[in-house]
Amino acid sequence: MNQKLGRASVKPEQPVYILSSASVVGPKEGQGPLGLLFDVVGEDDMFGCETWEDAESSLQKKAVALALEKAGMQPGDAGFIFAGDLLGQSIATSFGLSSYEIPLLGLYGACSTCGESLTLGTMSVAGGFADKVVCVTSSHFASAEKEFRFPLEYGNQRPLSACWTVTGSGAFVLGDKAAGDALPAACGAMPDGKPGGSAGRPRARITGLTVGKIVDYGLKDSMNMGACMAPAAASTLEQHFIDFASQPEDYDKIITGDLGKIGQKVLIDLLCEKGYDISEQHMDCGIEIFDGESQDTHAGGSGCGCSAVTLSAYILKQLEAGNWKKVIFMPTGALLSKTSFNEGKSVPGIAHAVVIEAC
Amino acid sequence: MNQKLGRASVKPEQPVYILSSASVVGPKEGQGPLGLLFDVVGEDDMFGCETWEDAESSLQKKAVALALEKAGMQPGDAGFIFAGDLLGQSIATSFGLSSYEIPLLGLYGACSTCGESLTLGTMSVAGGFADKVVCVTSSHFASAEKEFRFPLEYGNQRPLSACWTVTGSGAFVLGDKAAGDALPAACGAMPDGKPGGSAGRPRARITGLTVGKIVDYGLKDSMNMGACMAPAAASTLEQHFIDFASQPEDYDKIITGDLGKIGQKVLIDLLCEKGYDISEQHMDCGIEIFDGESQDTHAGGSGCGCSAVTLSAYILKQLEAGNWKKVIFMPTGALLSKTSFNEGKSVPGIAHAVVIEAC
Repeated sequence: MNQKLGRASVKPEQPVYILSSASVVGPKEGQGPLGLLFDVVGEDDMFGCETWEDAESSLQKKAVALALEKAGMQPGDAGFIFAGDLLGQSIATSFGLSSYEIPLLGLYGACSTCGESLTLGTMSVAGGFADKVVCVTSSHFASAEKEFRFPLEYGNQRPLSACWTVTGSGAFVLGDKAAGDALPAACGAMPDGKPGGSAGRPRARITGLTVGKIVDYGLKDSMNMGACMAPAAASTLEQHFIDFASQPEDYDKIITGDLGKIGQKVLIDLLCEKGYDISEQHMDCGIEIFDGESQDTHAGGSGCGCSAVTLSAYILKQLEAGNWKKVIFMPTGALLSKTSFNEGKSVPGIAHAVVIEAC
Repeated sequence: MNQKLGRASVKPEQPVYILSSASVVGPKEGQGPLGLLFDVVGEDDMFGCETWEDAESSLQKKAVALALEKAGMQPGDAGFIFAGDLLGQSIATSFGLSSYEIPLLGLYGACSTCGESLTLGTMSVAGGFADKVVCVTSSHFASAEKEFRFPLEYGNQRPLSACWTVTGSGAFVLGDKAAGDALPAACGAMPDGKPGGSAGRPRARITGLTVGKIVDYGLKDSMNMGACMAPAAASTLEQHFIDFASQPEDYDKIITGDLGKIGQKVLIDLLCEKGYDISEQHMDCGIEIFDGESQDTHAGGSGCGCSAVTLSAYILKQLEAGNWKKVIFMPTGALLSKTSFNEGKSVPGIAHAVVIEAC
């Protein structure tokens, strides 16, 4: 039986497997510390398209194509696709995925959407509603600046607390045990026959979920989203430790999506007040993906592509290599819009935690 | 065992029950043909708030409060809340639901979101991940006009093919059989002791789902969204009939969300070409909710509040009264944004079908 745990968590009866994944990023991400790990690095931010929005759509399309290919699947083999992005009315998704004709469940959780898509994908497989599903999210620096701040042409100044939206899309194929056992031998093999990878095996397995609630501390600075999201991250993590009766040291890493350097400090402080010290285990995808000093990315990377491509390219590889056994992967989202900001509203946060273990 | 049916459908092993529901609408909806059936009709469109966006948030908040109250629940009794709206970054949801502190899964499916929320809510209950969940969606005429077309102050003209976004929010509590058996006797009773209703019993049960895919016929007229969405509605319905091996006459009503008069004609014609005649069974919430002639609403009502309040206030009452036994409820969404429209993109559609049967 699938099990509801405590207030906000779920433990599937059988693990749900990450059968394959793919990451597609822009050139700046390709120049960052994780650059060599991504599947595709674009030559420029337009990816051959005429608008930034179309470029973001093409990222999703490419990431899904690659993830399906690695799992030896055709689009028709996927039961559902759980997808979202940051743009108003999720247009990167709508125009990126239509050609696949996969039944679509559109999501919006700001930069937490990768966690939300893995959460609902896991529920749909564990619940017996599909053998295999696809989860995909994206963000694009230029389309996000236009959507949330100013078009790039304005040349506005950014404070040091601001994040840099990652141009990238990460896609994941989830499946049940039978789907994992049936993976083609080439799936997960390292390119050029290099050692490592997980040839013919799933990349990892999802064994627990904690769904976040909206947390609003009343902060209004959209140029300091790390601080706005950290209370939500702390809330979900605390709930996770309670629901699973676990402690930080039960995990090799506790990984947030895009809190950045300021949000990281706030999160660690908030959890210390609750009696949990995660300073040893904490890692933030937004801090890892760029070299803040040489790349001038201020507080760090952000966007729902940030955590997705870091999971696909870096975190899953660490699990496959045996460096880590069990991690919490928790993308974090800031629930604001241009309109809510202009109307003087606060920036609430939300974060969804996914427990991922090595196979 | 929960069952995946065909390409895009799901049949839960046990039905999932609609334990309670609530509808909150604006004054124009209150003056329409269904006006007397809604739970709350606002005195004006601001609902005591200072912005249209806040007004829409207050609709969601009120609808959820009422649905929980009718089911004899506190917010802490709900496992998850599946919620969405039409505004960029779903701000009506983010600012409407934060006080409930229910683990939130934010959705975006344009005006199909009510169907998507019932779909995922049903999966989460049938999958054993929660005993009770809440599904809520909203739209607001003024916030939607500002988001998609022009602020009302511009006084722009609207063609006769345009829809009128419904100001309203519908909320539903779904639960498993045990939750249905434990409903308080007052739940579902008619006000003032009138006969009818379903005192102490669930309102209806959900017995099947068909998840829609994005369908893009290349239409670009955002003032004729019925025609843009009709191909998606036809696609989902055809898939539904195939997956369930059913025919239109197996349902008392086949109910779309907001195709309006033009979209209705397109849908019926498209399905006729596929060999399905739904002209007898078809009903559209957007056509029912307003009196187009006296209320000057052109093609009909729209918005993800439109189908939600019509389901709560009208459709479920017909099922409770025994007038209908089994219906397909299929909200329809147009996947556009201001940005995609300005960039000359088409308006793809999506529609999710939910089979609802009398208890």
